[in-house]
Amino acid sequence: MPELRKDPILGRWVIISTERGKRPSDFASPPKTRDPKMCPFCPGNEHLTPPEIFAVRPDKSNPNNPGWTLRVIANKYPALKIEGDLNREGEGMFDKMNGVGAHEVIIETPHHHLDLVDLSIPEIEIVIDAYRMRMADLRNDIRFRYVMLFKNQGEAAGASLEHAHSQLIATPVIPKRVLEEIKGSRIYYDFKERCIFCDIVRQELQQGVRVVGQNEEMVAIQPFAARFPFETWIIPKRHVTHFDKSSDAVYAGFASILKEILLKLKLALNDPPFNYVIHSGPLIEGSEKEYHWHVEIFPKLTKIAGFEWGTGFYINPTPPEQAADFLNEIDIASAAGVHNISQ
Amino acid sequence: MPELRKDPILGRWVIISTERGKRPSDFASPPKTRDPKMCPFCPGNEHLTPPEIFAVRPDKSNPNNPGWTLRVIANKYPALKIEGDLNREGEGMFDKMNGVGAHEVIIETPHHHLDLVDLSIPEIEIVIDAYRMRMADLRNDIRFRYVMLFKNQGEAAGASLEHAHSQLIATPVIPKRVLEEIKGSRIYYDFKERCIFCDIVRQELQQGVRVVGQNEEMVAIQPFAARFPFETWIIPKRHVTHFDKSSDAVYAGFASILKEILLKLKLALNDPPFNYVIHSGPLIEGSEKEYHWHVEIFPKLTKIAGFEWGTGFYINPTPPEQAADFLNEIDIASAAGVHNISQ
Repeated sequence: MPELRKDPILGRWVIISTERGKRPSDFASPPKTRDPKMCPFCPGNEHLTPPEIFAVRPDKSNPNNPGWTLRVIANKYPALKIEGDLNREGEGMFDKMNGVGAHEVIIETPHHHLDLVDLSIPEIEIVIDAYRMRMADLRNDIRFRYVMLFKNQGEAAGASLEHAHSQLIATPVIPKRVLEEIKGSRIYYDFKERCIFCDIVRQELQQGVRVVGQNEEMVAIQPFAARFPFETWIIPKRHVTHFDKSSDAVYAGFASILKEILLKLKLALNDPPFNYVIHSGPLIEGSEKEYHWHVEIFPKLTKIAGFEWGTGFYINPTPPEQAADFLNEIDIASAAGVHNISQ
Repeated sequence: MPELRKDPILGRWVIISTERGKRPSDFASPPKTRDPKMCPFCPGNEHLTPPEIFAVRPDKSNPNNPGWTLRVIANKYPALKIEGDLNREGEGMFDKMNGVGAHEVIIETPHHHLDLVDLSIPEIEIVIDAYRMRMADLRNDIRFRYVMLFKNQGEAAGASLEHAHSQLIATPVIPKRVLEEIKGSRIYYDFKERCIFCDIVRQELQQGVRVVGQNEEMVAIQPFAARFPFETWIIPKRHVTHFDKSSDAVYAGFASILKEILLKLKLALNDPPFNYVIHSGPLIEGSEKEYHWHVEIFPKLTKIAGFEWGTGFYINPTPPEQAADFLNEIDIASAAGVHNISQ
């Protein structure tokens, strides 16, 4: 059973994967080049993964067989385990509990050589709908307080398989970073009686210098205090706390802007490795007024070094206004023929 | 002038290096292989660096010439600038100020091909004494609230030059991460009337399962809630808040255990890239009872991915107790002949 351990000073939880138990030599080994025929996420290899939790099967084919266009499975090497109780306990002055949680993989396409950005907007809508459904379903497990949806693309961004996929981890505690966001939003709300994200959307649209895309429902910006070059946030224009409680119009707007932004980043930065994370309100109620879901995208261009680790400060060598200019220069229309942006 | 910008939600400061202004193509270029003859940190190339702030010159040679055994210079590409005022101002709802601060480089040895771990204990004591002196000197600048001393070794850990060096950044704000540590320590102190770090030292020495080295003054542990495999903390056994106000015995003990731990990590993990950071109390007074300086060392073995970015949670695949076993199996004595560990 993995263990959740709390840093006694910072209150930060860490997942200690006792079962993986990597030895020093495991870190030295170079990444394996894989035979695409053996890719566990490819059709025909369904037996290499845990059984599917959900799948989109337009041909009504049987579970755990080819025929799907999207597939959700439990992670074969989960960071947290779905069975069991938390069993909180102390070890002297230290606190720990069982690493209970869900860890799922959303396989975004059956095609091994397509990335999320290569999918059509209707196909991306199906991926987003799978995110929504899984988050809504995991609300039913009262042990969980939070569902984090994220995507790692490229080895440098932590992806261990290249076949396009996202992940989801449900945790029995609200993560520290999310608590901090909620706390910050609440301080602002108490002072202004307005949602801070709504105010950011308003000011960014007025100033215009950091906006890198928008449609009726969504806006994409380079945030004012961006930690990383080309860090991009996608925010619903209208207030909504929980990702899985948005309107269909918001999901459609999100699919369209997500494709647009990923394409701009791909063209501007030569197909960089990246992470994105969906920040949604916690599963338990209480932050409806002040919290507002959004997505943070980080192309992996710089290295985190000692100063960042020690301070929580970041050094960003590209001002977000400049990054916005670069992204807005990208001629997405000329790429549209290749990439079906208008699909 | 670089800008310090505050994330309006989290209150986290970010340094935006407006002058560097890296373009997308700057991130694509592969790291340059350098001619060691052109290394700006090598003797004979003193003219390639800003003038020295401090140097150890046993032969009483002139500043900015060869003859030194340790040299401190201003960073040629500083994240923060030493001149000017903070000039705090708003930009609508956002907050910013001038990026005022010090950014110095401590060149640890004149020998291009030696790492810190290869130096003798007396030589490491000289490096540590330079840390102490620079921190003590920067206390005199009332604009600064914090001095962060850190080392990046290896390209994957963010080092841009291979010649052995550490860095120091003095900031006009106390970094978020340090504030959080102080807050956590204070909550514990208010509850227990004891320093949390003193209690950690006590419990770790009693339990023994995570200790990887100790001497009269210092102990090295794998922390209970380690974020990363082989993350190692070095802590003075007796309470001391500020790194630069320690006793000579503490510095001697630190030099000796630092060499021992770096050697163990080098041998166990095949000379990994790593970062270390000295966490000391802020320059302004007020945290004397509850804060306790220490060093955090992170070998760079895993990649930070979306989940970590989104949650502030870490997934550590090697339990610290196992990592301690691996490190304690290292036969440092047999390496002593080569590495002069007993010097």
